[in-house]
Parts: sequence; C-alpha cells; structure tokens
Amino acid sequence: MNRRMIIYLIGHILTIVALFMLPALGISLYLQERGAAIGLALSIGLALALGIAAIMTRPKDRSLHAREGFVTVGLAWIVVSLFGGLPFFLSGAIPDFIDSLFEAVSGFTTTGSSILTNVEAMPKGLLYWRSFTHWLGGMGVLVFMLALVPTGRGSGHSIYLLRAESPGPQVDKLVPRMRRTAEILYTIYVVMTVVQIILMLLGGVTLFDSVTITFGTAGTGGFAIRNDSLAGYSPYIQNLVTVFMALFGVNFSIYYLLLIRSFRTAYKNEELRAYLGIMIAFTALITVDILPLYKHVNEAIRHAAFQVSSIMTTTGYATTDFNLWPQFSRFLLVVLMILGASAGSTGGGFKIIRVLILLKSARNSLTRMLHPNTVRLTRLNGTVLDEDTIKGTHVYLTLYGSIALLSMILVSLDGYSMETNITAVLACFNNIGPGLDLVGPVGNFSGYSHMSKIVLTIDMLLGRLEIVPMLTLLTPSVWRR
Amino acid sequence: MNRRMIIYLIGHILTIVALFMLPALGISLYLQERGAAIGLALSIGLALALGIAAIMTRPKDRSLHAREGFVTVGLAWIVVSLFGGLPFFLSGAIPDFIDSLFEAVSGFTTTGSSILTNVEAMPKGLLYWRSFTHWLGGMGVLVFMLALVPTGRGSGHSIYLLRAESPGPQVDKLVPRMRRTAEILYTIYVVMTVVQIILMLLGGVTLFDSVTITFGTAGTGGFAIRNDSLAGYSPYIQNLVTVFMALFGVNFSIYYLLLIRSFRTAYKNEELRAYLGIMIAFTALITVDILPLYKHVNEAIRHAAFQVSSIMTTTGYATTDFNLWPQFSRFLLVVLMILGASAGSTGGGFKIIRVLILLKSARNSLTRMLHPNTVRLTRLNGTVLDEDTIKGTHVYLTLYGSIALLSMILVSLDGYSMETNITAVLACFNNIGPGLDLVGPVGNFSGYSHMSKIVLTIDMLLGRLEIVPMLTLLTPSVWRR
Repeated sequence: MNRRMIIYLIGHILTIVALFMLPALGISLYLQERGAAIGLALSIGLALALGIAAIMTRPKDRSLHAREGFVTVGLAWIVVSLFGGLPFFLSGAIPDFIDSLFEAVSGFTTTGSSILTNVEAMPKGLLYWRSFTHWLGGMGVLVFMLALVPTGRGSGHSIYLLRAESPGPQVDKLVPRMRRTAEILYTIYVVMTVVQIILMLLGGVTLFDSVTITFGTAGTGGFAIRNDSLAGYSPYIQNLVTVFMALFGVNFSIYYLLLIRSFRTAYKNEELRAYLGIMIAFTALITVDILPLYKHVNEAIRHAAFQVSSIMTTTGYATTDFNLWPQFSRFLLVVLMILGASAGSTGGGFKIIRVLILLKSARNSLTRMLHPNTVRLTRLNGTVLDEDTIKGTHVYLTLYGSIALLSMILVSLDGYSMETNITAVLACFNNIGPGLDLVGPVGNFSGYSHMSKIVLTIDMLLGRLEIVPMLTLLTPSVWRR
Repeated sequence: MNRRMIIYLIGHILTIVALFMLPALGISLYLQERGAAIGLALSIGLALALGIAAIMTRPKDRSLHAREGFVTVGLAWIVVSLFGGLPFFLSGAIPDFIDSLFEAVSGFTTTGSSILTNVEAMPKGLLYWRSFTHWLGGMGVLVFMLALVPTGRGSGHSIYLLRAESPGPQVDKLVPRMRRTAEILYTIYVVMTVVQIILMLLGGVTLFDSVTITFGTAGTGGFAIRNDSLAGYSPYIQNLVTVFMALFGVNFSIYYLLLIRSFRTAYKNEELRAYLGIMIAFTALITVDILPLYKHVNEAIRHAAFQVSSIMTTTGYATTDFNLWPQFSRFLLVVLMILGASAGSTGGGFKIIRVLILLKSARNSLTRMLHPNTVRLTRLNGTVLDEDTIKGTHVYLTLYGSIALLSMILVSLDGYSMETNITAVLACFNNIGPGLDLVGPVGNFSGYSHMSKIVLTIDMLLGRLEIVPMLTLLTPSVWRR
C-alpha cells in the first residue's frame, strides 16, 4: 500500500475543494452573510492548510495498484464530504454535525436528499456551495483532478482512479491517454452546463437560480433552492430541465461518439435505446394514470415527463407532489428509482446497462438449459460480453440487494412507515433525493435519528462509488503492509 | 417433444388427485354436506375419466429430455390446480372461478393465501381437501407419482421430473435409483406427519383439527381452519407447530443423512447452520422489539418464535396479528419472507442455500478484485461449487427480482397501499400466505381484482416451481416439433 501517494493525492483533492469554495465565499461577502462567510473562510483555510501540507510530502514512488485506486477514491470522498460539510456546520446554518455531513454527502454524491426543513432560509453563499457540490460530484472529484492536475507522469495510476470513481460495469478510456479522457469528459460537461445556464437565463430566471438549478441538473443532484423544488417555475423552465436531466443521464461516451462523428455507433447503443425507451414508456403510462388529477393533458404530460426524467436520472427535482399520485404511478417511480440512469453519466442507480446485461445473461442461460446443444454468446452493442463483466454485474446485484435490505432493517428502527423507510433507502442508495411518504418531495429527512442518518449517508457514498471502493476500506487484508 | 408421454404422465397425476379427493368426499357424506359432496363427486368423476383416458394412450416411447421434464411439471401443476379447485367451484362454496383457482393454487403451492373472508363457514369436507392440497404439493405431486407409480422402467425421465419439481439450485438423488429416492423422501415425510398428528392429539386437539393443521405444517402451507389462524390454540400446540414448521423447512436430505448415521456430515451442513442461526437471531431481535406489547417475556418469545418459524419456512400460520408489531419487527418479517426456507424442504422462498452461494461468490469476486494474484474457489459444505451452479443462482436472482417487480407494478393498479402490494406479491411468490396491511394475518386477498388475482396465482406457481418450468411453457422454441 503506497500510503504516501494516497495522502498526496488526497491533498490535491482538498486543495481543489478549498478553491471551489471561493466563489461561495465571494457571494456571502457580497451579500454580507456574516455567519456563512466566516464558516466558508474557516473551511477554506483549514482545507488549504491540510491540503498543501499533504502535497508537500511529494512521494517518490507514484505508482498505484488497483486496490490502492479503490482506497484513494473511498478515502477521498470521505475527506471531501467532511470538509464540504464544514461550512454548513461552522456557519451555524446546520448546527448538528451529523446533519451537515449528511447534507454534504448528499451534495457530492448527487443525491439531493436534505435534512433542511426550510431551504429558503439558508444564506445564499451556502446555497450556492450546496448546489455546486452536485456539479463537482457528478462527473467526479478525482476525474477533475486527473483532467487538470499533473500528479505523476506515466505512473499509470490514473486508470484505476477513473475506474473506481466512474459508474458502470465497464469503464474505459475514450482515448489512449487517460488524462486526455478526463479532459474530454469535463469539456463536454462544462459546455453542456453553460448551454443550460444560458437557456435558463433566456427563460427569465435570475442568474443565481439559473446557475444553482443547472448545477443540480448537470450533476443529476436535485438540491433545490426553493421549498417547493421546481414547482414554482414556468413550464418552459420545467421542460428545459426535463430535457437536460435526460441528457446528463446519458453515457458521456455517446457525446464523444457524436463529436467524432460516429453517429452510427451512437445510434446503435443498446443502453441508450433502452434508457430512452423506458423513459418514454413510463411517461406514457404515468400520463394516462394521472390524467384525472390535472386540468389539461399537456399538464399531465409535462409533470409525468419531468418526474420520470428526474427520478430515472436520479436527479430528484419535482414539479408536483408525486406522493399524491395513484399507487400505480408511485410504484412505477419506485421501479425507476432502482433502474437508474446510464453508466458513464452523472446519474446514479443500478444503471440500465446492468439491467441489460442481467436480462441477456438470464435469457442465454435459459436457452442453454432448454437446448443444451446450442452455443450462444451474450452480446451487447454487437460485441461479445466477457464472462468477467457478466459475473461482476451479477455480484453487483447481490451486493446491491444485500446493502439495500440491511439498510432498510436499520432505518426501520426509527418506526416510520415501511414506505418511508424503503423509499428513503432507495432514494439515498440510488442518489436520487426524495422518496415517498414522509421523505416525499414536500417532506425531508430531518425526522430520522442520527443512527439512520449515518446509515443513509453511508448508503449515498456506497451508491455513488458503486460499492466496491467503500467495501475496500473495510477489508482488513488491504491495510496489511 | 414427446407429447404422448407428457399426456400419459399427466393422466397419472390426475388420477392421483382424484383418488386423494375420496377422503374429503367421505367427510362431506358423513357430515351430510350436500353441496360439498356433489362438488367433490363431480370433480372426482371428471378427473378420473380424463386421467384414465390419458393413461390409456400408453406411449411406446417413454423417454423424456430435460426440457420435456420442465414442460411436464409446468403443465401438471396447472392441470392439478384446475381440477383441485373444481370442488370449491362446483359445490358453490367459492362461486367465482378465478377465486376457486386462486385458492387451489394457493393450496398446492403451499402458499396459504386465501380469498375466503370466513374460513369457518366452509364445509368440513372442502376444508379437509383445502388443507390436504398443502400436504400433496409440499413434497411434490410428481415426486409422489415417481415414488408409487411405475411409469416406465429405465427410461431415465425421472431425474428430470424430480429436478424440475424440487426446490433448490442443485437437486440430486439421495441414492442411485431415482424411484428409491422419491420413496425415501415420502417415507420421511409421512412419518414426520404422523408424529405431528399424534402430538397434536396428545395436546387435546380434535382429530380433524390435528390432521388439517398438520397438513398445513408439513407442506409449509398455512391454510388455517379458523379465522384467527392458530391464535386460539394452547401454547403447547403453538410451540409444537413452531418446532414442526422449522423441521419441515429443513432439507430432507439432512434427515436421510441422520438415518444412515452420517451425523458429522449433517452437522456440518452450512445451509442448516445458517437456517437455524437466522431463525434464532431473528427470534431474539423480534422478542426484544415486541416485549412491550405482551404481558410476559415468555409470551413474547412464543409469538416471536412462532411467527419467525412460520414466515421463514413460508408456512404462514399466525398466533398474533404481527401486522400490529413495530416497524422493525415487521421489516424483519419481510426479509424472512424473501430469504425463505432450505432447498429440498417443503418450504418456499429464495432459499438459504442460494443466499449462501451468492454471498460466497460475492466475497470471492471482491477478493479477486483486490488481490488479483490469489486464486480462491467458492466452497460449500467443503466441496467446490461448480461455475454452472453459481451462474444458475445468479440468474435465478435476476429472474426472481424481475418477476417480483413486474408483479408489484401490475398489482398496484388496484390502488391498495404500497405495503399491501409489495407484501402481497412477496407472500404469494414466496409461497408464504399472509403479508402485511390489508393482506396481513387477519386480512385476506378477496379485495383484489381478477387481474391481480391471476397475477398472484401465476406468482404462486412461479415461486413453487422456481420459475424455470413455468417460463419453459412460454418459450416458443420448446413447442416446435
């Protein structure tokens, strides 16, 4: 275990986080939010001091193995969350430390579950920071570092960090050079973010609202800056966000394919087709189901499409209280919570590509059972899936199910309804945000005990990092010298 | 596809079902239950006529392949359910045909979910038949046939039938001869049944109650003959049933090992250890949780142990309305609903051995990911698990999860609470009986629409036959000549 290199890398991450807090500090100073400014300034100072101290260690050996990649990513996310939550705590805006940690983890993991009962009372500087954590966590803190900071030439550790932080069963470089891949991803991400901000501004929304809502959309996070989420915005803004949530839930390699004009390959991508197909089908089913609740069919379509896009991409914004929808629509949303978005997107959840791999593998096994003499390979996007990927996906399902059930057991100790507990765990583990019942779009997570909040916080990290990096931290054999 | 052989075998099954209806007819005649007697007599006549006609076809080619084993078992269970439900319908006791089919499938699959709102109003002859279906379905209708009826010497089809009907990821013969294996299983089953009846009688329960309750225990079925299930019986009887439910949820090969004095092998069985360990742990947790609800700690232990044994073995009897328990205990029961009993027992559910295989496989994969140079095999009971069994178990999880979610979506169209819908599907698919909320131990399934009842009926069959035989019937390639 190359501990010095891990410390060195986390130092970079801390410095990046500190620098990204500066705009928030600027906002708070400009608006004379005294407490927020002090909280942010202290956090920046502390993070910078520790970060620079860690960077100064300058390890000679800059190589990392696969398991050290997992450890680095797991630890980095914990450190980032601790420091990212510090401004909420030190400013006094969130007086409880566990609550401030919950809120920060919810931000970085792009979950968007909140313990705040009145979002609008938060200082603007902190609201900005809270939304920005979505943007940074969405594409990945370490991926950002890889794109911008030279941490060691030719040391080959980058691929392990990218793999450990990026969602999906198969993470591959877009181009041979790792750093260039990270650069391309972030360039696409920045451009799409800027385009959305401009389109929001054109819709007559203030700059502050445009920027924060866009951060939440781009990272598929879902922290809103109003208590009724996005219900108070115009249909134009709501539809715009519907489209952009869906776009940020697409595998970014698709955009790269479009940029290099491989339209055919992009068009034939099975995950993309399934993702869009499910979105359209669920929107249609829910529209029919909720039609009696709304005045006009257009309104029903708008709300159905928004909520489907929001839940499936694991963003978590809402334009209506879907907790009041009929059971059929509510359960369809629960299914979407589990399915999640695409691999290689900023979205969370189980991921459509995994569902495809599992279903194809099941069909293949059934065929072999019934016709033992036929040989059929499992293909995805025209290429044969290797057994390691299939097995890894199966194992992921086991871990996913076990963690979800175990979390639900622990959270049920608080005595809330089963629907609250099940959807609270699904909402946090899949990085969505709101669930149903007490944690529905007009509710929040403030009622849970400290123990449950810690469980849900761990779930958010497990979900964002897709389990393995967090489990690695708990494996004794990894820590042995 | 050897269609004539399939028809021939189903003819045997029909005849067996008809003959087993005779005691019920006797009871109805003795008690002068006119409607029930007519219903049973008509059903017996019809089943015998068709059954004997099918046997008369005497196919020359008596060989069956694996897929024909699945088809035979799938079709046989549908035919048995249709004819088994006929007495309820023809007697007028259950005037709705879908309802009578639901009740019959619930019986044979040892589910125990009921659409009856007043069980005590049923004629005794039909109550007897209803409970007997549990006993017959528990160990398997085709296994019974294999044990008693010579359907073709040396034709080698028996192993496929046994495999398709018996629960678990690996079904193997206890002894080299297939028919002898079926005989041993049924002998153990009959002896344990008789012992329980005697012990029930010693507890002062009437012969009718002793026999019917024992049928429901032995098959891990759960149809009660009183509206409050087993709440009205003495603590002795309740504790007796707790123990026997647990015994019938053990893999019967363990009893065979004890009979041939392989105590050491039996003692080291990992599934048995996990099964008993979970049972004890969950009983302890629930006892502590429900302590405030009962007068004395003994009472809390008795109810906790009974309900844990009942739900985990997928029997479904109740001694108390566990729907009123705290959320923690209720959710622990939901987890037990999914886990289920042991492979090769009369119990249903996902099965403990599958949970073990999945967790071991996951641990193995994680270790390989973190330490790529180590080679570790997945072992169970000291022997290495072959990749086919592991893969089959993974695929089973995929199918299990997909079917459960799809069923919940369909059932939610009826508009009942999410808790009702989720537990109704889990209760039927895992062959348990009661769920929570509206389908809790004092509720029933009568409120669901025909569509939902059909979905739940199919779930019961899918659960009992562990999915593959039912899916085989839907596979077009199997039917091609």
